[in-house]
Amino acid sequence: MTPTLFTACNALPPEGAELARGGPPLRSETSTLSTSCVSQPVPALKPSLNFPPEMLLRAQGVKVAFFDVDGVLTDGGLYMSGDGEQIKRFNTLDGHGLKLLQQAGITPAVITGRDSPALRARLRALGITHAHFGTEDKRPAAEITLQALGLDWSEAAAMGDDWPDLAVMRRVAISCAPVNAHVEVRAQAHFITQASGGQGAAREFCDLLLVASGSYARLLHACAQ
Amino acid sequence: MTPTLFTACNALPPEGAELARGGPPLRSETSTLSTSCVSQPVPALKPSLNFPPEMLLRAQGVKVAFFDVDGVLTDGGLYMSGDGEQIKRFNTLDGHGLKLLQQAGITPAVITGRDSPALRARLRALGITHAHFGTEDKRPAAEITLQALGLDWSEAAAMGDDWPDLAVMRRVAISCAPVNAHVEVRAQAHFITQASGGQGAAREFCDLLLVASGSYARLLHACAQ
Amino acid sequence: MTPTLFTACNALPPEGAELARGGPPLRSETSTLSTSCVSQPVPALKPSLNFPPEMLLRAQGVKVAFFDVDGVLTDGGLYMSGDGEQIKRFNTLDGHGLKLLQQAGITPAVITGRDSPALRARLRALGITHAHFGTEDKRPAAEITLQALGLDWSEAAAMGDDWPDLAVMRRVAISCAPVNAHVEVRAQAHFITQASGGQGAAREFCDLLLVASGSYARLLHACAQ
Amino acid sequence: MTPTLFTACNALPPEGAELARGGPPLRSETSTLSTSCVSQPVPALKPSLNFPPEMLLRAQGVKVAFFDVDGVLTDGGLYMSGDGEQIKRFNTLDGHGLKLLQQAGITPAVITGRDSPALRARLRALGITHAHFGTEDKRPAAEITLQALGLDWSEAAAMGDDWPDLAVMRRVAISCAPVNAHVEVRAQAHFITQASGGQGAAREFCDLLLVASGSYARLLHACAQ
Repeated sequence: MTPTLFTACNALPPEGAELARGGPPLRSETSTLSTSCVSQPVPALKPSLNFPPEMLLRAQGVKVAFFDVDGVLTDGGLYMSGDGEQIKRFNTLDGHGLKLLQQAGITPAVITGRDSPALRARLRALGITHAHFGTEDKRPAAEITLQALGLDWSEAAAMGDDWPDLAVMRRVAISCAPVNAHVEVRAQAHFITQASGGQGAAREFCDLLLVASGSYARLLHACAQ
Repeated sequence: MTPTLFTACNALPPEGAELARGGPPLRSETSTLSTSCVSQPVPALKPSLNFPPEMLLRAQGVKVAFFDVDGVLTDGGLYMSGDGEQIKRFNTLDGHGLKLLQQAGITPAVITGRDSPALRARLRALGITHAHFGTEDKRPAAEITLQALGLDWSEAAAMGDDWPDLAVMRRVAISCAPVNAHVEVRAQAHFITQASGGQGAAREFCDLLLVASGSYARLLHACAQ
Repeated sequence: MTPTLFTACNALPPEGAELARGGPPLRSETSTLSTSCVSQPVPALKPSLNFPPEMLLRAQGVKVAFFDVDGVLTDGGLYMSGDGEQIKRFNTLDGHGLKLLQQAGITPAVITGRDSPALRARLRALGITHAHFGTEDKRPAAEITLQALGLDWSEAAAMGDDWPDLAVMRRVAISCAPVNAHVEVRAQAHFITQASGGQGAAREFCDLLLVASGSYARLLHACAQ
Repeated sequence: MTPTLFTACNALPPEGAELARGGPPLRSETSTLSTSCVSQPVPALKPSLNFPPEMLLRAQGVKVAFFDVDGVLTDGGLYMSGDGEQIKRFNTLDGHGLKLLQQAGITPAVITGRDSPALRARLRALGITHAHFGTEDKRPAAEITLQALGLDWSEAAAMGDDWPDLAVMRRVAISCAPVNAHVEVRAQAHFITQASGGQGAAREFCDLLLVASGSYARLLHACAQ
């Protein structure tokens, strides 16, 4: 409820705001507020999310989280036209999670075997600057990011869904796979999400990292007041 | 069966009608009707939908319903191209529900952290004029709408799926979350839908509000004759 | 295996064939066939599909089948851009079913509250000429089609997912709803599909009508040899 | 861990790499690696995937695998605009599987009743050169491919979801259907996947063929180090 906390939901400019093509809002509602409809503060929110202690232990101290894109931040769908991949479907829950990670001091990074203008636009909107495109050789890419951040594998987390993600997932402190990842990836992951890729799976991993970092309750309260 | 009732399904111009790009219909079927194929009236329809009494009690007297967009009126999918968000996937069941709300005298309002031409086009087609775009700070937005309508929080309902929706959801008479909403939002919501966001979840909430308002059976009968 | 039967799968030009933008195939494979790889005929196929006798009784004698579009031939998704509805997602299983209906002498007809160039293009590709667009008042539309075909309600089937479909569904010999239709529509339908709308639900209804018409096994054998 | 093995994930140029529209990466991370973040080799991976012996027996010796497109490499969705089929949604897990097949010496081939620039672009990206478009008469098309490769039906596998696929599926050594294929196709298939079409179903069939060919563990280890 303090101003500092209250800005948690507003730390980044709203996504898509740049898309508003001028013109007035559909309805002008600019009058000053009367007091009649202003509600009283509501009681502080008690977080309902829980994780097993051993999982939280693994996730403690994580400073960077690597995310694959297709099948992790998307449902694995490749929307192709005759000109190649035109559209990528991301998820709003995941997007909020990646913003919250940054507010908690955990750097999200992306390493993907593909590349597209759609992906780059999405990463820009989320403020993700550590990204490697078009490489299936993900371990060296991760090592470049680790060095740039001055971090070690033991301070890293990783989420992937297919074989090329394994080389990174097997080296980090905590690894995660969506429930619909390839069976070999699920077999190696420490944490398997309930949601499928592109349906909020990445958000579940963000939640785990946020709880382990001790920031979850503070960020939630700031949003919910 | 009275003319007044019969127009319930037709009170708004059909969506997409403006898209018909001229030209004749695929087949001309304009002959006058013979009587042979005109059916007799069928018996009145008995609604099969039921809600717990305590839920109906909460929903009684609602005059405005706030809806988040991504994850509530959509499945949370953000379809991105290199130029930003190009397409939004809405749902036909939800669209009909939002029209029925208006016919029952309940104002649907939208508060969303994003903005896009696709969303604005959809709201226009549905006749929704109370809308706030590009703001994660949803409580003040809701209060502006309440004041514009001369209503209080106790006459409001709200449906959301993520943390920024909580500040509004915790103040209204009845709150709703899709079954695939974030766990903290489900924990706070009074009513959890069976369908996921973008798959008819909003329609379920509209149904509840319509039953509580006493308009459901009348509107259904008007459509089904 | 007779030529007449064998053409069952090929009675209509392949969909999308007109989209092939010239140019040679990716690989030229035009040599004449040696006999080494030509297989022997396989045994005739025994259909595995079954329906309850009372359902088949209802469906016997059906000559026209009315289909709603959104939520029945699609999953209810409305893909909007700033210019309105640009894309509609149909289903390949449903498309084949609608072609098979025609081969069995049952006319598919479409009555929809919406309209879009995408829908009209799809109906053209499927050879569906009886169609009413942009009307929520579906009973008169159905009566116009019945008269054009010289048929009665007792010779009609209908599939719908929302209230505006009920006026037609309640008058036909057999009505069908996808499993994810609105609860009131499911309550009225004679037959509820296992698949959701846009995921093969319409094909299940086509299968029922084909079995009841006595054409199913013949059409299947023609395809499977 | 040998260089030869290590290139397994990198044998083909990354998909979509050609889409990167020039410009520098979002962040320049080109410094040489320090040793601090370079991890030690991890233990070799033990594959977790298993198949029934009789299934592996059927799949042994397969040299070519036929795939239908709609409903097999996609979820059956036909994304139509007024100009026809504009977009096709493929799957990233399937794409990787089709590449692995080629690395194991098994030729993937496509036979489809439809055609679109989107499909042709996808096949090019996957390096699939044996393809027949716009034909529902799939047996002769398969025979042309078999002859071009100098193979027999007993060395072929096939995956399909609808009636036109049956003529090929019934002649090959091992046939596969996605779990959401038409009931008659499921009834004929030797192997039914757990995933639906377009959600990784084709990858499951690739996995089976790779295990039966003895290449699975080698290819997995090459990716996971």
